[in-house]
Amino acid sequence: MSPENRQTDPVSPPSGLTRRGFIGSAASLGAGVGLGYAGRSLLSGNESSDQEVRGTDRVEFYGRYQAGIATPAPEFLSFAAFDLATDSPDDLRDLLQEWTAIAVSLSQGRLYRPIPEGPDVVPSDPGEAVDIGPAALTMTFGFGPTLFEQAGSDRLGLRDRKPPRLADLPQFRGDSLQAARSGGDLCIQACSENPQVAFHAVHTLTRAAQGKATLRWSQDGFGRTSSTSRSQITPRNLMGFKDGTNNIRAEDTDQMDRFVWAGSEDGPVWMTSGSYLVARRIKILFDVWDAISLEGQERAVGRMKISGAPLGQEDENDALNLDAQKEGQPVIPRDAHVRLASPQNNQGVRILRRGYSYSEPAETGSGEIDAGLFFISFQRDPHRQFVPLQKRLADSDALSRHLLHTSSAVFACPGGVEPGGFIGEGLFT
Amino acid sequence: MSPENRQTDPVSPPSGLTRRGFIGSAASLGAGVGLGYAGRSLLSGNESSDQEVRGTDRVEFYGRYQAGIATPAPEFLSFAAFDLATDSPDDLRDLLQEWTAIAVSLSQGRLYRPIPEGPDVVPSDPGEAVDIGPAALTMTFGFGPTLFEQAGSDRLGLRDRKPPRLADLPQFRGDSLQAARSGGDLCIQACSENPQVAFHAVHTLTRAAQGKATLRWSQDGFGRTSSTSRSQITPRNLMGFKDGTNNIRAEDTDQMDRFVWAGSEDGPVWMTSGSYLVARRIKILFDVWDAISLEGQERAVGRMKISGAPLGQEDENDALNLDAQKEGQPVIPRDAHVRLASPQNNQGVRILRRGYSYSEPAETGSGEIDAGLFFISFQRDPHRQFVPLQKRLADSDALSRHLLHTSSAVFACPGGVEPGGFIGEGLFT
Repeated sequence: MSPENRQTDPVSPPSGLTRRGFIGSAASLGAGVGLGYAGRSLLSGNESSDQEVRGTDRVEFYGRYQAGIATPAPEFLSFAAFDLATDSPDDLRDLLQEWTAIAVSLSQGRLYRPIPEGPDVVPSDPGEAVDIGPAALTMTFGFGPTLFEQAGSDRLGLRDRKPPRLADLPQFRGDSLQAARSGGDLCIQACSENPQVAFHAVHTLTRAAQGKATLRWSQDGFGRTSSTSRSQITPRNLMGFKDGTNNIRAEDTDQMDRFVWAGSEDGPVWMTSGSYLVARRIKILFDVWDAISLEGQERAVGRMKISGAPLGQEDENDALNLDAQKEGQPVIPRDAHVRLASPQNNQGVRILRRGYSYSEPAETGSGEIDAGLFFISFQRDPHRQFVPLQKRLADSDALSRHLLHTSSAVFACPGGVEPGGFIGEGLFT
Repeated sequence: MSPENRQTDPVSPPSGLTRRGFIGSAASLGAGVGLGYAGRSLLSGNESSDQEVRGTDRVEFYGRYQAGIATPAPEFLSFAAFDLATDSPDDLRDLLQEWTAIAVSLSQGRLYRPIPEGPDVVPSDPGEAVDIGPAALTMTFGFGPTLFEQAGSDRLGLRDRKPPRLADLPQFRGDSLQAARSGGDLCIQACSENPQVAFHAVHTLTRAAQGKATLRWSQDGFGRTSSTSRSQITPRNLMGFKDGTNNIRAEDTDQMDRFVWAGSEDGPVWMTSGSYLVARRIKILFDVWDAISLEGQERAVGRMKISGAPLGQEDENDALNLDAQKEGQPVIPRDAHVRLASPQNNQGVRILRRGYSYSEPAETGSGEIDAGLFFISFQRDPHRQFVPLQKRLADSDALSRHLLHTSSAVFACPGGVEPGGFIGEGLFT
């Protein structure tokens, strides 16, 4: 957890308290939403319950940065993109205030609001995460280019607030994007150690958006495909290789400042301490990949499959030696993924990867497994970091021949929120 | 874990050994598949690795019953149905032998075969579960009605082996089934405490089927929606209610014998100690469900939302009192789910539920969350247990009005395998 998100705010329950322990609280939220309900069912139900309380890890929502970027990536993701269903900036502000209130509650392992008493009252919280605990839940919010300008229209009067760095991504070689599963005005990235907690967050936030924003596309993921903290081991992606060995780690604050966090000099002001999120749904073409020899796979990646060591080295964490030769040929092939993606070959540029594996029902009639990587990266400037890197990979990378990019989006994630504030409030000042 | 699956077989590694610890073994498998490879990369990679070993729980594959029925349901599911791509019974036998060999290896936390040395050899195991450990993996295999007879054709010469109880399920009121996501000649139910391990199992088995069987449909799940053992707490489904309180528990061996396991008198012989699996993909219509008052939801279910207690009672495990009245009306409404599904109203009939929640990408343009229950039940006779129960629910259940059944299948899961045997060998004798 980054130190910034460890801070305490006046309404937080003590660390370790869960939905169960904190139930029935009538503390008011920072965003000003009162909790006036008595919480009858919830209170009585939980008092008589003998269930274990699980997932007591709690990640602070408030802080200089939004949680879910520098905080250690947990095992599960629910991601959702929304289209705004209103042209009223007041509606957008209301939505962001309500989303903030929900995020504060849920990140503490509480219901959005205690389930109310009375025959005709519809619960604010759908309830499927009751008893589970916060399970390290984070919710990270972002704004897409179309929020600021859509087909030339200044739909919300926010055009002059649009960050220049939030321009649409270009088409890359081989892209096979589904428009309906790309883009979006708003996004939510919910991460948790428990998939039901991540689902519940997106469910609750989607429900609260009714009439103001509509679910455009969504994507669940598991088994984070990068480490984002020194406390984490390198996971293995669905191609069977360790992934993210050379990722930025949150502990490298100089790297985070240089490559991830937008500074006050980067503009606009409301993006200070924010970051730009790029999402790409990348299908693995298993029919071909699975038929390649071990050496063929290792040459495409540039690392040993099991150990993760760079070709020609012994250990996963050994430095890449891009100059090493054997019998007149480079040990790490010219088109190997690690060579083309290395900072050495990209003017030192790095990004913070925070993606997940995905697996979906097989496409009808295809006979193929539909699984791969839901790539997420955070960077200070997508067009100087992600775009040149991805262009190089799309053009020349041996690994890319086994991958199909089917979804793409970019979002501006503003800086964090202090108690009393709400996500993106700088848009309205 | 059922006692039957705790037994030791001569080639099992000691309990607690994982892929990491057992790597490089050249022990031969019960099914006769030799492990002749040296396992270079695997061995060296793991010896130099400093990764944690996770998920050391191991469920025995061999036994009187197939694992994955009476063994405690872990948190994750990968389910797949296949169409046979051959009319040769020898091909089917070869496939079942190879699937058995894979299941033996993977359930021990090992690779299918150690990754081989040499430039041109394609690894038998795709590798994404290396280092994770067995994570309680079970693989349960079943045969669909079409394996025995397809459009009147005795395609494999197995028509006379077809169990009468394996007849197709009828259409139920409100069913909205997608044919391409229903049925199938063969099925695999992979369950694990780690979603990547469950994925890897289906991936490896699908790959091994190449040329003999083709993936027809697949479904992943999380957060088991029933307890199948007294050691488990009752989970909550995505409607926010505790689910499976009154499920059969594996410890109730008399109930298992009466309702789940096919006996030798049930016929055919090859199904002795097997069970019939019914799968139903059930979408929750959240738009309506989420707009109902707490009391409305509780009356549709017949239980309190948070505590899980039957209406009018205090505790989740209190017995249903279907006769209780208040002000001349039944406390548990006439159309409440628990009333219609109760054994009291179904000639004492019970089933073993072992389903999972699912969440998928939102359907394009729908604006709706696509999530619900991937219902799985095991029973001795689907047409005397599942069918009348589901007919009653489809016709009258208040809860069913918020559900849409979109996929359906029935499979005959044969009895378990002893070392040296293979799944379904009784089909060929």
